[in-house]
Amino acid sequence: MLVTPLGGVGEIGKNIMAIEYGPDMILIDAGLAFPEDDMPGIDIVLPDMSYAFDRRDRLRAVLLTHGHEDHIGAVPYLLREVQVPVIGTPITCGLVQRKIRQDGMELPRGSRTFEPGATIEIGGLRLESFRVNHSVPDAVGFALHTPVGTIVITGDFKFDFTPVDGHVADLQALARIGAEGVLCLFADSTNVLRPGYTPSERLVGEAIATVMRQAERRVIVTTFASNVHRIQQVFRVAHDLGRKVAVVGRSMVDTVDVAMDLGYLEVHPGTYVEVEEVSRLKPSQVVLLTTGSQGEPLSALSRLASGEHRSLSIEPGDTVVLAATPVPGNEKMVHRTINNLTRQGARVITPGDSGLLVHVSGHASREELKLMHRLVRPSYFVPLHGEYRHLEAHAELARELGMPADHVIVGDIGSQFEISQRGVRIVGQVPAGRVLVDGLGVGDVGNVVLRDRRQLAQDGILIVQVAVRADTGEVASGPDIISRGFVYARESEELLDQARSRVSEALADTHGEAAAIRSAVRDALAQFLYGKTGRRPMILPLVVEV
Amino acid sequence: MLVTPLGGVGEIGKNIMAIEYGPDMILIDAGLAFPEDDMPGIDIVLPDMSYAFDRRDRLRAVLLTHGHEDHIGAVPYLLREVQVPVIGTPITCGLVQRKIRQDGMELPRGSRTFEPGATIEIGGLRLESFRVNHSVPDAVGFALHTPVGTIVITGDFKFDFTPVDGHVADLQALARIGAEGVLCLFADSTNVLRPGYTPSERLVGEAIATVMRQAERRVIVTTFASNVHRIQQVFRVAHDLGRKVAVVGRSMVDTVDVAMDLGYLEVHPGTYVEVEEVSRLKPSQVVLLTTGSQGEPLSALSRLASGEHRSLSIEPGDTVVLAATPVPGNEKMVHRTINNLTRQGARVITPGDSGLLVHVSGHASREELKLMHRLVRPSYFVPLHGEYRHLEAHAELARELGMPADHVIVGDIGSQFEISQRGVRIVGQVPAGRVLVDGLGVGDVGNVVLRDRRQLAQDGILIVQVAVRADTGEVASGPDIISRGFVYARESEELLDQARSRVSEALADTHGEAAAIRSAVRDALAQFLYGKTGRRPMILPLVVEV
Repeated sequence: MLVTPLGGVGEIGKNIMAIEYGPDMILIDAGLAFPEDDMPGIDIVLPDMSYAFDRRDRLRAVLLTHGHEDHIGAVPYLLREVQVPVIGTPITCGLVQRKIRQDGMELPRGSRTFEPGATIEIGGLRLESFRVNHSVPDAVGFALHTPVGTIVITGDFKFDFTPVDGHVADLQALARIGAEGVLCLFADSTNVLRPGYTPSERLVGEAIATVMRQAERRVIVTTFASNVHRIQQVFRVAHDLGRKVAVVGRSMVDTVDVAMDLGYLEVHPGTYVEVEEVSRLKPSQVVLLTTGSQGEPLSALSRLASGEHRSLSIEPGDTVVLAATPVPGNEKMVHRTINNLTRQGARVITPGDSGLLVHVSGHASREELKLMHRLVRPSYFVPLHGEYRHLEAHAELARELGMPADHVIVGDIGSQFEISQRGVRIVGQVPAGRVLVDGLGVGDVGNVVLRDRRQLAQDGILIVQVAVRADTGEVASGPDIISRGFVYARESEELLDQARSRVSEALADTHGEAAAIRSAVRDALAQFLYGKTGRRPMILPLVVEV
Repeated sequence: MLVTPLGGVGEIGKNIMAIEYGPDMILIDAGLAFPEDDMPGIDIVLPDMSYAFDRRDRLRAVLLTHGHEDHIGAVPYLLREVQVPVIGTPITCGLVQRKIRQDGMELPRGSRTFEPGATIEIGGLRLESFRVNHSVPDAVGFALHTPVGTIVITGDFKFDFTPVDGHVADLQALARIGAEGVLCLFADSTNVLRPGYTPSERLVGEAIATVMRQAERRVIVTTFASNVHRIQQVFRVAHDLGRKVAVVGRSMVDTVDVAMDLGYLEVHPGTYVEVEEVSRLKPSQVVLLTTGSQGEPLSALSRLASGEHRSLSIEPGDTVVLAATPVPGNEKMVHRTINNLTRQGARVITPGDSGLLVHVSGHASREELKLMHRLVRPSYFVPLHGEYRHLEAHAELARELGMPADHVIVGDIGSQFEISQRGVRIVGQVPAGRVLVDGLGVGDVGNVVLRDRRQLAQDGILIVQVAVRADTGEVASGPDIISRGFVYARESEELLDQARSRVSEALADTHGEAAAIRSAVRDALAQFLYGKTGRRPMILPLVVEV
């Protein structure tokens, strides 16, 4: 059997994993990632799925662990290439369906849902699902039972002993699977650096209740749109305290609709109101549930904060609860939103500053990871879902629990794990990694384009245009210099005039050959401009023969 | 009397403040800020000092509170414009001197140093300095005594009751000044959102000692180069445990030299060794003190982590202590460094993950801010040094301490505070804010250039070149399309061919007028390209008449 984590940006073994056994291949998850700082203009990052596409004859299904973008977001791109059945719990499939319908697609034939705990047979593969807790309902991991042995894939997980929906992670199943014997565990490492246990989601409900009780006017709650449990608690608390809830922001509205349709969200009749009704209610009766917990510039909360929302505005005395922590890289956008809200007279409650637990993580902390290891009792262990520092810390944790060092294997994106009676080892490296999506283009922006964008962003571009007579090689017009993003041309005429003189001098030594002109222009300008400005703009000589 | 905070990027009233009384003006600090995400290519951000330059006849001196870049970094730019005496404690002036000598300058005539506690008279102004604690030695605040009343400016501060150098913030002076009566307090708000007290720097020394005792091989410590107290503790602990210290990275070497020269750093003979000596020592005897705590790509630690340092490399078993937290925006760079170090076999200790207090803040937490308020007992209060959310929280804190709401005044960058017997009020807004430095250029990159850079970074540029006969208006050559940062041209020939056809069609309707050609090209391409790619590159039509 071969197990191959194909995806991840920064995080290793996130997003997608291929499992091959005999003639059959399945994928676990097909998610996307968000671009890093050094990928200007990129909208999303897909995993490189070419390994799966190249083996499409053997690809039987994609099984989904849960409905987060980083686990389902690449499904539309997968389905464009190969019509493979999509299998997951009802809400996971519901969220996928909503997504692909926006692209005018339907789920392929053979797609189906299962309840957590069910066993799914695909070709020669038998996968037992087991419930885990996470910040979206009906998240599961899989135990893959094969004649070689059982491997356990946790998916994203935590243990919540007092979950909002009453469904505790299936400790009994995990204990039984562990008792029966597990050859290898592949586990989430996201929070391995956090000591102790991750608090229960229920505590967030209590914190939100405290805020709503204290607030004399409107309460605005923002969180990740997919966090149905938290949304459930907002509705529940609002109802208990005599408030109505209006939902603002497309993705939040979509989740609420899907979750209500499928019975994952219980809302008292009359508690859920249209946004238009808000103005007719007393401020003390209003809760707004909005997108924008990451300070996304186009989100409902950011528009509210900057006074640019079409129908709503912040009022002095509003209380805004940011029920989320900023994903690394989003801190400044979140802080900008908080500043804007504060300027408009809102009180802003964040997880860090307030002393109130208005956010908890969806991932297992160290002691929960130990619990998973102790329940599953694997012979071999492969840490996944984390940067290298996380995987290494999770490997160290496993060794501390007594696993022999050579049974703990840290791989990389595209590492191919062979699982056999002889044990687990990395046998190769397959094409894997990232495919960049920019607008409608999938994979057409690569390193060359990104390098150009970074250079353009740093110091701009200087275009030098020269027309040369084809017959004599004489300059017919120019050189003309046009710059963008380099200096403000109106205030830098002298510099650009000098640059033009340099180019003219350089041209005198060439004899009308385009290549010679181009290299002369580059040489003359690069040094001159760096000396004068300390900058290295892109220099683009354009020679027209006339 | 007028008090005008002139600087700040994001933070209000940081970097520089102008004080005018009668015919005299002084500046408190002249620091710089680092660029935000939306300022591509910018190296540093200066405060707009034009208000001071316009009143240079009255400008008597710049007084410095302490030697951090955000308080002294703009001094070289100030001195290029106006030769004004620089006044500060010995180490602050020593750090300024080192900085301006790199630019071939010397401190202007009249520059001088003072010991914390000294009173400085400048024209009709009398400033009593008082010692505060901060993450650099001999930091001070000022009490400005005038016939109108006394105003207190804290500078950056914390209270450290067990400071490394033995010099506690001057509680006695603050209490006396408070007893004599203070009209207005201007105070640091950086850590107003943190409850309790900021721990003593001494605890960092204890944590570093714990690490060094446990480490069996080399220990590499990185921190802010200016943190002389922490550097002192590294030398002290190393000596106690029989290790030698080598210093790596230019700014760290510079600080150590300045601090040793001026007597701020005590190093046992033989403990401080050259980097070349390290290879002759046993790993258990080695400490490396390096720059790079923010993951700066060119720093010593980043080069070590990526295996690109010219003389040193990470060895398995090395322990690396990141004695700093990432400044917001630097998280990903720091994490990249940690991942690289871990891959090379180092154990990395960070303030967040280790449970060891290897970093403490240099700014006062909430209870310390209350202590400052209770010592100084001002009639009016102006929070400074923070984003709007911090200033508002500090204003709230002051109101909680019993100050009347109309005596607590939140201003903005450039707000002019008038201080008179009638009290404190904002009387105007002066030109203030940011001047961007890119390479050698100061202020020549403005909004237009930045907007172009952001657009270029997002989707690149498409240049359309057409040569037109001046006499007939016919196309003589082209259209040619050149793109950078848009699509990878070799793999997008069809798209670019189609674009060329569109341009040719559009040109058929024009009659050789350059302006008409340019607008036809833009119109034809913008829509076509957005429809095909979902991107909006900058479109630059270049028309040559021949």
